[in-house]
Formats: sequence, structure tokens, C-alpha cells
Amino acid sequence: MKNSDNIPYKIYLSEEEMPKTWYNVRADMKTKPAPLLNPGTGKPMGFDDLRPVFCDELIRQELNDTDREIPIPVEIRNFYKMYRPSPLVRAYCLEEKLGTPAKIYYKFEGNNTSGSHKLNSAIAQAYYAKQQGLKGVTTETGAGQWGTALSMACSYFDLDCKVFMVKCSYEQKPFRREVMRTYGASVTPSPSETTSVGRAILKEHPGTTGSLGCAISEAVEVATSNPGYRYVLGSVLNQVLLHQSVIGVETKTALDKYGVTPDIIIGCAGGGSNLGGLISPFMGEKLRGEKDYRIIAVEPASCPSFTRGKFAYDFCDTGKVCPLSKMYTLGSNFIPSANHAGGLRYHGMSTTLSQLYHDGYIEACSVEQTKVFEAATQFARVEGILPAPESSHAIRVAIDEALKCRETGEEKTIVFGLTGTGYFDMVAYEKYNNGEMSDYIPTDEELEASFATLPKVEG
Amino acid sequence: MKNSDNIPYKIYLSEEEMPKTWYNVRADMKTKPAPLLNPGTGKPMGFDDLRPVFCDELIRQELNDTDREIPIPVEIRNFYKMYRPSPLVRAYCLEEKLGTPAKIYYKFEGNNTSGSHKLNSAIAQAYYAKQQGLKGVTTETGAGQWGTALSMACSYFDLDCKVFMVKCSYEQKPFRREVMRTYGASVTPSPSETTSVGRAILKEHPGTTGSLGCAISEAVEVATSNPGYRYVLGSVLNQVLLHQSVIGVETKTALDKYGVTPDIIIGCAGGGSNLGGLISPFMGEKLRGEKDYRIIAVEPASCPSFTRGKFAYDFCDTGKVCPLSKMYTLGSNFIPSANHAGGLRYHGMSTTLSQLYHDGYIEACSVEQTKVFEAATQFARVEGILPAPESSHAIRVAIDEALKCRETGEEKTIVFGLTGTGYFDMVAYEKYNNGEMSDYIPTDEELEASFATLPKVEG
Repeated sequence: MKNSDNIPYKIYLSEEEMPKTWYNVRADMKTKPAPLLNPGTGKPMGFDDLRPVFCDELIRQELNDTDREIPIPVEIRNFYKMYRPSPLVRAYCLEEKLGTPAKIYYKFEGNNTSGSHKLNSAIAQAYYAKQQGLKGVTTETGAGQWGTALSMACSYFDLDCKVFMVKCSYEQKPFRREVMRTYGASVTPSPSETTSVGRAILKEHPGTTGSLGCAISEAVEVATSNPGYRYVLGSVLNQVLLHQSVIGVETKTALDKYGVTPDIIIGCAGGGSNLGGLISPFMGEKLRGEKDYRIIAVEPASCPSFTRGKFAYDFCDTGKVCPLSKMYTLGSNFIPSANHAGGLRYHGMSTTLSQLYHDGYIEACSVEQTKVFEAATQFARVEGILPAPESSHAIRVAIDEALKCRETGEEKTIVFGLTGTGYFDMVAYEKYNNGEMSDYIPTDEELEASFATLPKVEG
Repeated sequence: MKNSDNIPYKIYLSEEEMPKTWYNVRADMKTKPAPLLNPGTGKPMGFDDLRPVFCDELIRQELNDTDREIPIPVEIRNFYKMYRPSPLVRAYCLEEKLGTPAKIYYKFEGNNTSGSHKLNSAIAQAYYAKQQGLKGVTTETGAGQWGTALSMACSYFDLDCKVFMVKCSYEQKPFRREVMRTYGASVTPSPSETTSVGRAILKEHPGTTGSLGCAISEAVEVATSNPGYRYVLGSVLNQVLLHQSVIGVETKTALDKYGVTPDIIIGCAGGGSNLGGLISPFMGEKLRGEKDYRIIAVEPASCPSFTRGKFAYDFCDTGKVCPLSKMYTLGSNFIPSANHAGGLRYHGMSTTLSQLYHDGYIEACSVEQTKVFEAATQFARVEGILPAPESSHAIRVAIDEALKCRETGEEKTIVFGLTGTGYFDMVAYEKYNNGEMSDYIPTDEELEASFATLPKVEG
């Protein structure tokens, strides 16, 4: 085992070193992310337009593209102390196994019961809902990590929590449902007969296995039709990337302590919350021209928003009840094959990351799921941690970049986000272990048909 | 949130502070644990007698009751660095919720993929097997945590791993099986038709849901009938308690750093590995008369070895192929109700802990599983972590002791072992959530019938 750099296997910050502010990368962007538009009028939505759906303070955060540092309330910082700081791990064992001169680090967000980074934003959103005196919140969940995180956060602040869970995950992951119920949440498979938008989707696509876009529509309908409820979202939105910046700020603080500067930063990208959070302070330096980093977004070949999507205004949800967002999108009607294991199934991408990608600050690539599980298994066996399929997209590319370094002899420093654990993904691992997993790549024709549904908006 | 003591939510040791030696509590015992006996001759078993079953170095550790500190090889310490130190958590949120003046700490061993403390001994046993040039090892697993831990350890050292999994867990926890397979292990439900002892048990008890005792017999048979294999065990044995002392040494180092002395130390007790490890250095002080601690072993009412068992020589396994061990036992024929959720199903108890209990150094109590899940849910909602049913036995009693402090106003310091997470126990949680869980307490007649099978040995 090489350990010549005198860097510990795991770097933990002390409580005093933990972030006191979130990092708002929009403050550093010359071209700001495009505003949300009212789907009826095509006009940008302001604070008052968004109030029926979102909590007040979260809207302020959503619209704030000028303040670089936003204080983390002490109640949230106290909750963070229960499961953070997350370790920044030096992957000595993986490096040795790969025979690479590259130095690999990963920021591991899976050491909490939600099993992922999602808790970072869930606790913030629950806190602001409680502050506003609300009764409860509604949301959607795909793989179940966000729903679990929100259930935990709501239970902590004694808020009601109604979760719409994408049907294929609901069926593949009954245990996730029970974790949410243990934390007191109600869980409904989506699309469901309990909402008018759910009924409409079921009528148009009988037997659909659902998508995040469907579940969002249902959750928004319930929030806006029940007094004292608001809708909260676990990814895509600016506010979520803001809360997730705690990942990046901790990572940068830890690296700075040891004088380490990354060459490459890698994250998986579904809606963009993990990647956006991880890169925030690094991207700030890049945008200000102080440092340069290669930043790589990794998406599944089955749902390739960045690499094959269009940069356009689109609906955030299948039912078209949400504001329009300018983003890389596959079209809100796009529903990824049920064949795909785990999360990253969303048709669109964070507006902030979309703008950064459009402006050339981020690279993107897509990978097939069999290659992802191959990397996941290799990683699990040497680093101990059984990774979530989502996180394993980043592992795949980190390994590929490390292998390139083996060819060139370059001692690059690679940092990737390990967003969570795969304990609830054993159905997918079983498929892979049995050699029964296959890949799915949408055809150009499928994508063209989906793009045809994009709304006509100048943006 | 009270935080007036200036003690962090989580105390992590640095790599330099991590233990370099295991703590062998037997060195401090005036009355040593009774030796293992040959079931045929009734004679104490020495090094040569044990070699067909166990790895050489592990036998030396098993028999060593004189050296207090045993060095941890650097390879094992390096592996420990991948997932240790485990945090010692101050349960501020639980204290507040309970309104107790007690100060509650828990040592959380669940932040690794095996989900429990079992990895501490698995990696040590795999290391010594590899050192001896073996091809592989066999073992049993109940709830699946030990099997998962051993699979991870064997995969790391490239050893073959054959696991016999108690049938009721195999069926209730298919995901555990897939984790083990992901790490390259083979997993067989026990009792099985693949061994002669398995076939005999099935003949005598058709349709049995199995027990740890059965699975041990099968694993031992396979180890002794395949050249290059040895049997390894995840609990009960002295060597396992020795490896698990890393829990106690870390706990004591962390508490000492902050000048904290516990009044009460609580652990769940199935075979005794967690409790034995947690208390080791504290028990050393108690045995030497330097300090006094209340030490409480918590066992399930459905499998009450300490509180209702006999202190006698008994078989470690149902098939009676293992050495005889002097311990608190319910009789090797005792098979707990399948109704019971999770581990702690073993009929006996560590010889070391049995002697300490017999000599009055440990208290014991038993708790019913509905009360355990009530405590588990309460804990999960305020402390975030979803605990394993096994660990929740300790939570139950820690809460009860904290509530007593609320009555008396005493500011006692309570430390308990939180051995693992419950992500693979959601079937049991679902039962509890649905109000379908019931309790099971064996009758005196059942126990008497089981005691009648104890071997006639003077001990």
C-alpha cells in the first residue's frame, strides 16, 4: 500500500472547520442561469409567482444570483453535525489495484441513513418550511434516496411528508418505502389515481413505469391544492445546488489543508445536484480565472441530457404544471427505459449546470450501465464501499481517467463525488451478478420525437 | 440543542490515535475462561487439536490468556484505516427528546458496507488465513452481517469464501446474499443437503428455519473435508473478542481525550463479540480494581442465554462437531422462534463473557422485540441512523436508563454500542410499521427440554 504522500486515508474536518456558509456559484457567472418562465404567459417568474408552490425563503435563494456566500442557519449546521463532515477519502487501494500514478480522492456522502448527499438539501428545505409555519411538504422520489432524506428531515422537524415514488422504483425497492414509513412519511407509487395529473398520465400511457417528471407533477398538484403544504424538490433547482455546495466547500477545505489541487473533478449528473454542489467553489475559481480545473459530468447513455439533449426552455415535469426551465433536455415526455438501474432518470438538467456546460466550463460524457456496474464491483472489492449505481457513473470515468494516466505516466489528481451507497440497489446488482444486465441507448428517432414536444418559447 | 459540554457531536480519532494493539481482557482475569474441551475425550484442546479447524495464528490468540496487549499487524491496521476510526457520537438529540440529564454516547460501527462491527474480526481472520497460505475459509452467518464482512475481507485478500446462511435469514434477506456474491462469495442456505450434518439435521427437523448452531456445523464440515480450507467464526470465540477490542480501545481513547468517564456501558449480546470488544479496556480497569463501571448485557427475551441459561459445558453447534465450550447456554438444540427479527439468535455466549458474568462483573437483562423496535424507531427519528434490530436492544436499555436519570435527576454518563445499520432488516421494520410484530418468550418447559441435552461434562 503506497502512502508516501502522508495524506490520511480519510480526511475529516473538525466541527470548527465545517462550512458556515453555502457557496452560490451563480454570483461568479457572467452569463447568469436563465430565469424560470410562467408556462402560460412565457414571462419570467418572480417571488410572488412562485409562492403558491415553494417556501418563501427557498424562493429567495432560488432567485439570488448575486450573493456568493449565504449563511447556513445554526439549526441546519447542528443537524449537519449529526452526519457530517463527510470523509474525503484517498483511494490508495484503488490506485494500487489500477497501477496508476494518478492520485484519486472521493468525497463520500453515503454515511447517513438516506444513503446519499440528498440529506444536505432535505434538511435545509424542511427547516425553511418549518420556519414558515407550514404543516407539511410534498415531493417526488426516483431511486428513493431523496424521499428517504426528506422523510428524515421532516421527522426531525415534525413536519408531514407526502412522497410520490416513481413506480418502477417503488416496486424494485420496497425497502426504501419502509425506511420512509419508519420516518413517518406517506409513500404513493407514481403515476397514481390520487391526483388528476396522475390519472391523465395513466390514461395516456397505461402501464407506464413512471418517471421523475410524472411524480413531480403529482407532488406539485397535492402541494398547491392543500393549504399549509408546499412542494420541495431534491435536484435541478438553484436552491438545491446551493445547499449541496456544502459538499464542495468541505472538499476544498480538506484539500487545501493538505495543499492538494485537483486536475480533474468528476461527478454523476442526473438533475445535477451532486455535481453542482461538488464543483461550486472550484467553479468559482475557474469562472474568476484564478484556477483551471477539468470538470466532467457523467450521465447514463440511457438518459443523455447533456450529450444528446437540446439547450432549450422545457417543462420540468411530464404533467406540465411546473415553471419552464432553460436547460439541456431530452423533452419532458422522455421516459427512460425501465431497464435502467437506479436514478439519473430525469429528462432535464440543472439550469445552472446547463449554462456552465453551454459556456464551455464543463465537459460531459455518457456511459453504459454494464460498464458502470463493472466499475462499481471493482471499486467495492478494493475500497470496501458498495456504491450506488448513480455514484458508480463517476467511478467509471474516474477509473478510465486513472488508466489514461497509467498510459501517459501523468500523476494527475482526480477527485470524484461518491454520492451514496447501493444497499437498496441489490436487485440491479443481482442482475449484473447473474449476467442478465443489458444496455439501452435511445435511438435518434426516439429523441427527435421527444424534442418535438418542446414548448415554443424564445429563451 | 444543548451542547454546553463542548464535546463535539462526533468524536473521531486521527490515524495516529488509532489503536496499534488489541486489548486481551483475559490477561486481567483472575479466573480465566474455561478451556475448550474435546467432545470425544472431555480433555482440554491444545494447539495441535485445533489445527484441523482453525488457522494457526488464530489458535495462538484463542489460547493466549496472559498477554494484555497484542500488536495489530500493519496490513490489518491499513485496512482498518479504510473504514475506521468509527465515530463516538454524543446523542445530543436523543437526550433532548428524552428530557434526561444523562449524557448518552454511542460508538457507531455501521459505517462500512458490511453494516456492522463484524468487519473488525473478519479482516483479521482473513489476513491470518492468507498468511498461512490457505485457499479459502468457510463460515456461517445469521442476519448476514458476518457473512458480508467476511466476503469483503476475503475479496480484499483474494481468498475463497464459502458462507452457510441461516435459512430464515437467507429467505428474509436476499439482498444480503447479493452483497456477498458481489464480493465473490458463495452462499448456501442452512441447513442444506450439501453436507452430511445438514442432511441429518433436515431429517430430524424437516422444515426447520435453521439456526447459527446448524450453520456452524455445516461450515466446519466443509472446512475440515477440503484441503487448504479452515473454518472462521464471527462471534463467541476469544480471538473474536480480541479483534473486537478495537471498538473499546477507540472508545476509551476518545472519552479519555475529553476527560469523560462512563457510569454505565451497554451492549447487545448474541454471541458476545460486540459487547466483549466494547468493554475490554474498561473491564480491564474494573478487574484490576482501578475503576468501577456498571456493564449491562442486553439479550432478546426470545433467546435469553445469560438471564435464563445454564453455565455449563455445551456444544457450540447443533451438529455437535465443534469443541465443547463452557458458557451460559440454552442448550445446543435450542432454536429460537423464526418470529424473532434479526440476529442474536445464538444458543450460547462467549466463554470470556460467561465467566465475567458468573463472577459478577457484568449485569444482564432481556427485552422483547416490540419494545426493541419502538426504541429503534424513536432513535432513528432523532439521531438519523436507522439501527439494526440487534443494536436496538442496546438502544432500548440505554433509553430506559436515561429515563431513570430523568426521574432521579442524576447526570449519569451512558455509553452504548451501536453495532450496525438496519438497511437489510426492512422486512422486520415493515412488520413493526404494520403493527404485525409480536413477542415470543420460550416457556420454562421448552428450556428444560433443551437443557436435558447438555453433555455430561465436569467443568
